[in-house]
Amino acid sequence: MQGQQQQAYDRGITIFSPDGRLYQVEYAREAVKRGTASIGVRAEDGVVLAADKRARSPLMEPASVEKIHKADDHVGVASAGHVADARQLIDFARRQAQVNQLRYGEAIGIETLTKNITDHIQQYTQVGGARPFGVALVVGGIENGEPRLFETDPSGTPYEWKALSIGANRSDVRDYLEEHYEEGLSTEEAVGLALEALDQVNDDGLTPEGVGVATIEVDDEQFHERSPAELETVLEEHGLLADEQDDAEDAADGDE
Amino acid sequence: MQGQQQQAYDRGITIFSPDGRLYQVEYAREAVKRGTASIGVRAEDGVVLAADKRARSPLMEPASVEKIHKADDHVGVASAGHVADARQLIDFARRQAQVNQLRYGEAIGIETLTKNITDHIQQYTQVGGARPFGVALVVGGIENGEPRLFETDPSGTPYEWKALSIGANRSDVRDYLEEHYEEGLSTEEAVGLALEALDQVNDDGLTPEGVGVATIEVDDEQFHERSPAELETVLEEHGLLADEQDDAEDAADGDE
Amino acid sequence: MQGQQQQAYDRGITIFSPDGRLYQVEYAREAVKRGTASIGVRAEDGVVLAADKRARSPLMEPASVEKIHKADDHVGVASAGHVADARQLIDFARRQAQVNQLRYGEAIGIETLTKNITDHIQQYTQVGGARPFGVALVVGGIENGEPRLFETDPSGTPYEWKALSIGANRSDVRDYLEEHYEEGLSTEEAVGLALEALDQVNDDGLTPEGVGVATIEVDDEQFHERSPAELETVLEEHGLLADEQDDAEDAADGDE
Amino acid sequence: MQGQQQQAYDRGITIFSPDGRLYQVEYAREAVKRGTASIGVRAEDGVVLAADKRARSPLMEPASVEKIHKADDHVGVASAGHVADARQLIDFARRQAQVNQLRYGEAIGIETLTKNITDHIQQYTQVGGARPFGVALVVGGIENGEPRLFETDPSGTPYEWKALSIGANRSDVRDYLEEHYEEGLSTEEAVGLALEALDQVNDDGLTPEGVGVATIEVDDEQFHERSPAELETVLEEHGLLADEQDDAEDAADGDE
Amino acid sequence: MQGQQQQAYDRGITIFSPDGRLYQVEYAREAVKRGTASIGVRAEDGVVLAADKRARSPLMEPASVEKIHKADDHVGVASAGHVADARQLIDFARRQAQVNQLRYGEAIGIETLTKNITDHIQQYTQVGGARPFGVALVVGGIENGEPRLFETDPSGTPYEWKALSIGANRSDVRDYLEEHYEEGLSTEEAVGLALEALDQVNDDGLTPEGVGVATIEVDDEQFHERSPAELETVLEEHGLLADEQDDAEDAADGDE
Amino acid sequence: MQGQQQQAYDRGITIFSPDGRLYQVEYAREAVKRGTASIGVRAEDGVVLAADKRARSPLMEPASVEKIHKADDHVGVASAGHVADARQLIDFARRQAQVNQLRYGEAIGIETLTKNITDHIQQYTQVGGARPFGVALVVGGIENGEPRLFETDPSGTPYEWKALSIGANRSDVRDYLEEHYEEGLSTEEAVGLALEALDQVNDDGLTPEGVGVATIEVDDEQFHERSPAELETVLEEHGLLADEQDDAEDAADGDE
Amino acid sequence: MQGQQQQAYDRGITIFSPDGRLYQVEYAREAVKRGTASIGVRAEDGVVLAADKRARSPLMEPASVEKIHKADDHVGVASAGHVADARQLIDFARRQAQVNQLRYGEAIGIETLTKNITDHIQQYTQVGGARPFGVALVVGGIENGEPRLFETDPSGTPYEWKALSIGANRSDVRDYLEEHYEEGLSTEEAVGLALEALDQVNDDGLTPEGVGVATIEVDDEQFHERSPAELETVLEEHGLLADEQDDAEDAADGDE
Repeated sequence: MQGQQQQAYDRGITIFSPDGRLYQVEYAREAVKRGTASIGVRAEDGVVLAADKRARSPLMEPASVEKIHKADDHVGVASAGHVADARQLIDFARRQAQVNQLRYGEAIGIETLTKNITDHIQQYTQVGGARPFGVALVVGGIENGEPRLFETDPSGTPYEWKALSIGANRSDVRDYLEEHYEEGLSTEEAVGLALEALDQVNDDGLTPEGVGVATIEVDDEQFHERSPAELETVLEEHGLLADEQDDAEDAADGDE
Repeated sequence: MQGQQQQAYDRGITIFSPDGRLYQVEYAREAVKRGTASIGVRAEDGVVLAADKRARSPLMEPASVEKIHKADDHVGVASAGHVADARQLIDFARRQAQVNQLRYGEAIGIETLTKNITDHIQQYTQVGGARPFGVALVVGGIENGEPRLFETDPSGTPYEWKALSIGANRSDVRDYLEEHYEEGLSTEEAVGLALEALDQVNDDGLTPEGVGVATIEVDDEQFHERSPAELETVLEEHGLLADEQDDAEDAADGDE
Repeated sequence: MQGQQQQAYDRGITIFSPDGRLYQVEYAREAVKRGTASIGVRAEDGVVLAADKRARSPLMEPASVEKIHKADDHVGVASAGHVADARQLIDFARRQAQVNQLRYGEAIGIETLTKNITDHIQQYTQVGGARPFGVALVVGGIENGEPRLFETDPSGTPYEWKALSIGANRSDVRDYLEEHYEEGLSTEEAVGLALEALDQVNDDGLTPEGVGVATIEVDDEQFHERSPAELETVLEEHGLLADEQDDAEDAADGDE
Repeated sequence: MQGQQQQAYDRGITIFSPDGRLYQVEYAREAVKRGTASIGVRAEDGVVLAADKRARSPLMEPASVEKIHKADDHVGVASAGHVADARQLIDFARRQAQVNQLRYGEAIGIETLTKNITDHIQQYTQVGGARPFGVALVVGGIENGEPRLFETDPSGTPYEWKALSIGANRSDVRDYLEEHYEEGLSTEEAVGLALEALDQVNDDGLTPEGVGVATIEVDDEQFHERSPAELETVLEEHGLLADEQDDAEDAADGDE
Repeated sequence: MQGQQQQAYDRGITIFSPDGRLYQVEYAREAVKRGTASIGVRAEDGVVLAADKRARSPLMEPASVEKIHKADDHVGVASAGHVADARQLIDFARRQAQVNQLRYGEAIGIETLTKNITDHIQQYTQVGGARPFGVALVVGGIENGEPRLFETDPSGTPYEWKALSIGANRSDVRDYLEEHYEEGLSTEEAVGLALEALDQVNDDGLTPEGVGVATIEVDDEQFHERSPAELETVLEEHGLLADEQDDAEDAADGDE
Repeated sequence: MQGQQQQAYDRGITIFSPDGRLYQVEYAREAVKRGTASIGVRAEDGVVLAADKRARSPLMEPASVEKIHKADDHVGVASAGHVADARQLIDFARRQAQVNQLRYGEAIGIETLTKNITDHIQQYTQVGGARPFGVALVVGGIENGEPRLFETDPSGTPYEWKALSIGANRSDVRDYLEEHYEEGLSTEEAVGLALEALDQVNDDGLTPEGVGVATIEVDDEQFHERSPAELETVLEEHGLLADEQDDAEDAADGDE
Repeated sequence: MQGQQQQAYDRGITIFSPDGRLYQVEYAREAVKRGTASIGVRAEDGVVLAADKRARSPLMEPASVEKIHKADDHVGVASAGHVADARQLIDFARRQAQVNQLRYGEAIGIETLTKNITDHIQQYTQVGGARPFGVALVVGGIENGEPRLFETDPSGTPYEWKALSIGANRSDVRDYLEEHYEEGLSTEEAVGLALEALDQVNDDGLTPEGVGVATIEVDDEQFHERSPAELETVLEEHGLLADEQDDAEDAADGDE
């Protein structure tokens, strides 16, 4: 579809195009692609969230690049896309988790939490007066002693994965994951796989400050984010440590 | 109708075109066609819901491809089109079923439930401020000891069928069903017919993971979804088992 | 009026064109014409509603093609146009009838009911935020022992008729009715006249499943819909029975 | 003003054009002209309302062509233009009359009632979210023992007349009235004048079923609508009775 | 500013043009110019309101041409422009006057009343959802024993004048007034001046029915509208009486 | 930016242009320039407000040209631009001053009052549904015994000045003020400076009726507006008295 | 993206472009660049806020150029962009700080406060009916005895920095800061660094009146703004004192 005709769909609120697509939702997916990559890997005994979080300047605090978030004790979320939108959804997720704890006296299930989020996202694609969320999330945690790993996209569709990638270079990272993922890997092996996948699309190698890794294991069902020191050890073990620290150049302001 | 003139109808909320059509509703029907096929078959002693639910990646959990849903103990729903929209309508259906149980102390009728859904859908096609639902549903269940099978479309029209297909390749599957449907078939025969119809439009054959089948029988009036193991047996009996598992390539993100 | 200029009226909510027409209302009338024909005939001792309700597929349940509706014990409604819109108006009519019964302890008058409906329709043509109803109704019943027969159109205008037709081929059917209608005919003769008129615009003849007929007679003031068996007898008596059953091809999805 | 420029005013809600006109109001006046003629004549001892109400088909009940309405015991209204809009204003007028009776214990004045109506109409020409009313009214009745005759137009302006015409052929009928109106005529003479004026623009002559006449006289201050039998006598007396009954061809659906 | 560019401002609600003008307000001023002239003159001992109120037809009641209104015992208003809009403002003024009497137990001041009206008008030029008022008013009355004379325009600006003209031929009438106005003239002399000014722009001379004159004098602080008989005397005294009565041709429907 | 592209920003509510400007706010600044000049000068012992307030006609009451307003006993405001908008802001300022007196028992500070006004103005530039205010204000008064002088512009930005000019010929007047302003001047010298600056851009010289001057001095903290007689003396002292009185030609209706 | 296509995104409320960007947000970033520079530097024992605040005229009070604001005793904010928008956010920040003090009895954390602000900003980029904020903020203060320094941008993204620049010449100033920033510098050294960075992009050198500097030190956790006298000393120490005072020419009205 060309020129004038396309304009028609660009202008309006989220409405259908003649071929049944929701343009604003598809454009929101482009916003996701503008963000740096986030990865999730489900292991036998835990889930791993990893993200490219290189800062744009050596003066920026690496810790303030928000890619990996704790949603509840037993749930972590990695995001890609519009940072400010991600914060809204994380806040929503945290409130849902708290409400569940208060109302039922137990931790919210990972699938339930994910679907609460996607149903919230869907509303912004159907009812007028607001734009869709320009962000995708990887939601990982432990439910009934089992690691679970989900994706939310800007249309509000939930999917469960063994391993997945969102954000920049999504298909390249996915290809790598499909090729190297194996059933039954341990959480530590999953951390290695996630970092190797990130390395595939990072020309300059990885640095402890430039990546984020969090794990939630079956053992203690607790969200743990790795410190730069821990990450340095892991990166060295996998021969992924960059020679020198470089700044990310490919993420625009407000998109991570 | 060409070019400039068509644009006029694309832009606005759901309004009539000069020839009396509602473009946004027709575009929503295109969204349904972008989803993979779902099928319903009414047997003598039950109803069958079947769906093409091949995952887009071997890393995606097949169970998370949402095509067949339990709406109540005695009612199942298969969907085609925009997944996030389908979830909204399923939620609506579940609430209607619960309210009916609470208010009247009995299970909701299949026809009543379907018309509750379609009246809800209609509102989104007449009142401004929202787009229509981009999804069609097959609603099947047992009412007064009789199997019933309904369709809802994006205009909000309810239809009752002996056998029907929604989503991709709708007319090819319907032709197959019209040719092979016979009055008085058993639920198990209906499962076979549904899978054979799905196979017609699937070049790579069917896999236990790539299809979903649910039945509600007159006997126990309970929604039963077949396990992959059960499906493997059925597929083998009908000579429909694919040589190797392939991923679906024809469904876009968010459309199933 | 051509090209660019016409677009102006297409886009907006229901506003006047320079020659004083309401385009959205006129386009809604086109939606009525896209539906299959419905007919009303007022007899000496009752009113007759008849409709072309051929199903689009042999797998569709003929009974689910909604053309003739019971609005109250003593009132029937036949519709043509957008089915989902018709359902809304029928629901509205039923609530009006119930409210009248509750408030005044008596059955609602046919003229009162019709004007309640048309005033409701008018609101959708003047106040913004919604499109007009894309459907016309034939409202028939008994009031004070007299048969009454009304029409509602998408502008919200009520008219009383001796015999009328709405939907596809409206003017051809009307010509036939004008030529053959006679004062003082009995309900059974009116059934025959309605079916003969339907036959004029049906190349393939009529089938018991493909037509709907309901009568409300002065005797018992009760809405009666004819069964397929009863219809077969009537059709045979009038030499209108088709050789073989054909499917309708001329009604689009959602328009009946 | 031509082409592109004019479009600008057509699209929006009721706003001013560069030359200070309200296009939507002027287009609403065109809707009035599309309706058949209505006439009011003020006599010494009463007011007369008359209207062209030929049915579009011999099967249509002439009584259901709504041109002349009783607003209160002592007030009648004749309308021209969009029928469904007229019904809204008549309902409004009736409620005003009732409220006045309840609140002040006396019949509402004709001038007060008219200005209530025009102020209501004005709101629809200034505040957004709705279109203007596409109808003009002749409001006639007795106030303090005097016959009064008013006009309301789509802008919401009230005017008092000795005799006036609204709807199709307005200026031709007005010319006739200006030429033949005389001060001091009796109600019966006024009925004759009104029918003669109607006859000027009716090529086929008048029929008892095709015209409506109502009078409110000073004597009893009661609205009386003439029966077809009474009308036949009057038409014959004035030599206006048509040779045979013809159907109106010049009023579009929904405009009378 | 030409063509396309101008359109931009025509369409929207009242917004600024690049040169800082409010187009909708300026177009509303054009609506004022389409109305017949109204004049105000402040004398030593009273104020005079005068207006061209020729009827468009000999059948129209001259008294129903609304140009001069009583707002309170001591305040009169003459209008030019959209009649229905003028009625809204007069109603607003009357309510303000009543509220002032109720709340403070005294007659509202002319300046206070005028500014209440202009502040009300201003709201319609700044807040969306409605168009500006298409009318200008001359507000005259007695305040603290002094005659006061104000103007309101569609922008909501109040001005005080010794003598002023609004409506058609505004600048010609103003030139006449500027040339002939003298300080210290009596109310009767002011009536004469106002009529002479009206006569300047009236080719056919003035008639008692075709003009309206009201005075409020310091003596009794009461609004008095002159009767046709009184006006005939005055016109004759000033040699302004027309030979024969003509109808106004220059005011469009709804603009006076 | 040219032609088509510019239109885009003209149409909408206050939104950003690609270069980060708010067009509606900039157009509102043009409205300010269309108004006649107002000047503020801060002296050692008081503040001076002065304004060009020539009437457009000798029949207009000079006192009704609203350029200088008393906001509270100790605060004056001079305006330039859209008069009706200025009135809204003055009313707002007065209510703020009263509320402050009631709530805290003391006179509102000049800086606080100014920022209340600018925050109010800002809302009209960010939230939809209304246009910005087309007026600038000079706010002057005494706070804690010190003269203070502020400006508000249509963007809602507050600035404090020693001397400033708003409205027509702003930059010429500012140049004059920058050149001749001296620290420590007395209120009377400041009156002279303000009038001399006004005279620079007035070809016809100044008249007592054509200028407005108000002062608030540290001594009594009271707003004093100079009478025409006082102004005549001052003008003569500064040799600024015009030979004969001329009318302003350069201010459009509603802009002062 | 060119011409026509770009227009599409300019017009609407904040919606996604086909490449996933939010144009209104990016245009708001341009508004930030139109403002003069503000700088933040985090030292070992405090944070420094500095800003270019040259007045546009020698008659403008330098103190009224709002670039550096006290948000709470221990928090300062420097802004760049639309001044009136900055005031709204500062007000919001102050209320948040007060609420925190009232609710929890302790000073609000710098990170918490920043994220409260950015979440508020985000709402204006997603929900319709208002434009984004055209301003960026540097938020600095002491939290748990540690200096913290944050940025908010128009998208609503929070970032933590060691040193940063917003507003005009952002990248040049950032280059200078990246080159000269050293870990462990003292607050006084940080003041020097900030002023030197400002000097890089100021051709005319710095003046005590033309810059603003505030510090919050770990010692007393109190916001201190430097007086012109203090600044003169510092500037002289760093050899940055300009020869003579010049006015800023590069900031448009309302943007600082």
